[in-house]
Amino acid sequence: MAITLAEAEQILQASKAHATQMGLIVAIAVVDPRGDLVAMIRMDGALWRTAPVARGKAFASVAYGVPSADLMARADTPVMRSLIMMEQGEIIPQQGALPIMRGQAVIGAIGVSGAAAHEDEEIARAGIASLS
Amino acid sequence: MAITLAEAEQILQASKAHATQMGLIVAIAVVDPRGDLVAMIRMDGALWRTAPVARGKAFASVAYGVPSADLMARADTPVMRSLIMMEQGEIIPQQGALPIMRGQAVIGAIGVSGAAAHEDEEIARAGIASLS
Amino acid sequence: MAITLAEAEQILQASKAHATQMGLIVAIAVVDPRGDLVAMIRMDGALWRTAPVARGKAFASVAYGVPSADLMARADTPVMRSLIMMEQGEIIPQQGALPIMRGQAVIGAIGVSGAAAHEDEEIARAGIASLS
Amino acid sequence: MAITLAEAEQILQASKAHATQMGLIVAIAVVDPRGDLVAMIRMDGALWRTAPVARGKAFASVAYGVPSADLMARADTPVMRSLIMMEQGEIIPQQGALPIMRGQAVIGAIGVSGAAAHEDEEIARAGIASLS
Repeated sequence: MAITLAEAEQILQASKAHATQMGLIVAIAVVDPRGDLVAMIRMDGALWRTAPVARGKAFASVAYGVPSADLMARADTPVMRSLIMMEQGEIIPQQGALPIMRGQAVIGAIGVSGAAAHEDEEIARAGIASLS
Repeated sequence: MAITLAEAEQILQASKAHATQMGLIVAIAVVDPRGDLVAMIRMDGALWRTAPVARGKAFASVAYGVPSADLMARADTPVMRSLIMMEQGEIIPQQGALPIMRGQAVIGAIGVSGAAAHEDEEIARAGIASLS
Repeated sequence: MAITLAEAEQILQASKAHATQMGLIVAIAVVDPRGDLVAMIRMDGALWRTAPVARGKAFASVAYGVPSADLMARADTPVMRSLIMMEQGEIIPQQGALPIMRGQAVIGAIGVSGAAAHEDEEIARAGIASLS
Repeated sequence: MAITLAEAEQILQASKAHATQMGLIVAIAVVDPRGDLVAMIRMDGALWRTAPVARGKAFASVAYGVPSADLMARADTPVMRSLIMMEQGEIIPQQGALPIMRGQAVIGAIGVSGAAAHEDEEIARAGIASLS
């Protein structure tokens, strides 16, 4: 059971609106349970690196089914380091991404990059809130 | 001079509508002149690989400023092969992507993957047509 | 808005003159806002590794819009480590590079390698000073 | 015995002047006998890819001590393909680079990218001609 594109687009628009309201410029990525991109946007002026970082945070979040902030403490465990290496850096255990749930199931994740990490997470949360 | 997110979103929606009308399921990526993602969507049911392939075609198109179909004849030249290797495969010289112009300037490219290559290109063209 | 080649060449010559005055042998790289090379020189006797390191520092500096010295504290954060891995090591968060500004805009960066890190940075600064 | 930076800079300026005279926009790289960069420039408006391609052609030329055009016929030999793979694509056996000689010795190479391959080579030749 995976997030639909319609849901992902709704989340992206809500997150973008929230970022704009906060005066922030970010990239926002929504991934499916496998960590693959469903949809993403990079706001005008956001640096190139925000796109892969937003996706990397979302990938980390969905790979564990928890907010990526919760993974920071284990960023240096051998498992995490090897997993990151296997994926050539594309998993990023850093605050700014949240899993997207349908009931008890993780159906995807949203990751944000470009602002302070706690702002990235707030923007992600605003996107998810639009679903309910 | 790069494509704006608003333009990229408009293109994506038009391409998606055209794909739906054709009964096709694809991923669609819009990149800036450097080949970095500006926005992308993957339609429900499109395989994971369509996302990186759509972006890879767009990257190829924008790197040469021509439709990616025009690059197929030189896919085996030493320059193209090395460039692809340097970019770890992320440049894909295969039909399905078109440069996006503003006057004479290449401001980005759109790449599509998931259908037959000529259908991918038709979907890309429909997206660009929505800009004018 | 990117640095011009004429500006980059002027910076390189000023940095080289400053290095010579200090009795130091270095490589100096100037990159555009995306981190791509605009111009570089490696002084006679500077080891091969100084060339990619100079560019790597400049890439790090421009990717964050700050002196690369400011990035050393976060060299071990998950984001930085993953970004470096994604770029196959070509981003180097170590002192010796400075962003190049035009007004408020980052138009590129200069990176230096071959001397002590603080000397590298001094040589970079001398190059930028020649612009004004 | 390697090319000096002063020689490399003279070659770059002569090649740049020749390209300008031809109305062409290119990147030009000078490497030492090991294939490592000594100096490079990318002219305003030349795409990012011209920088690594110019260097890759120069690397190929100096690795064999012949014009890179002479390597095109063996681009598909197992040795060349493996060598390119070992260097992750950074050796490019395509026209546009020439070895730089001092007497009988190869002291470096110049590679050009951005125009038609035979124009790239002409620009390279103009640079070398300035040395004598």
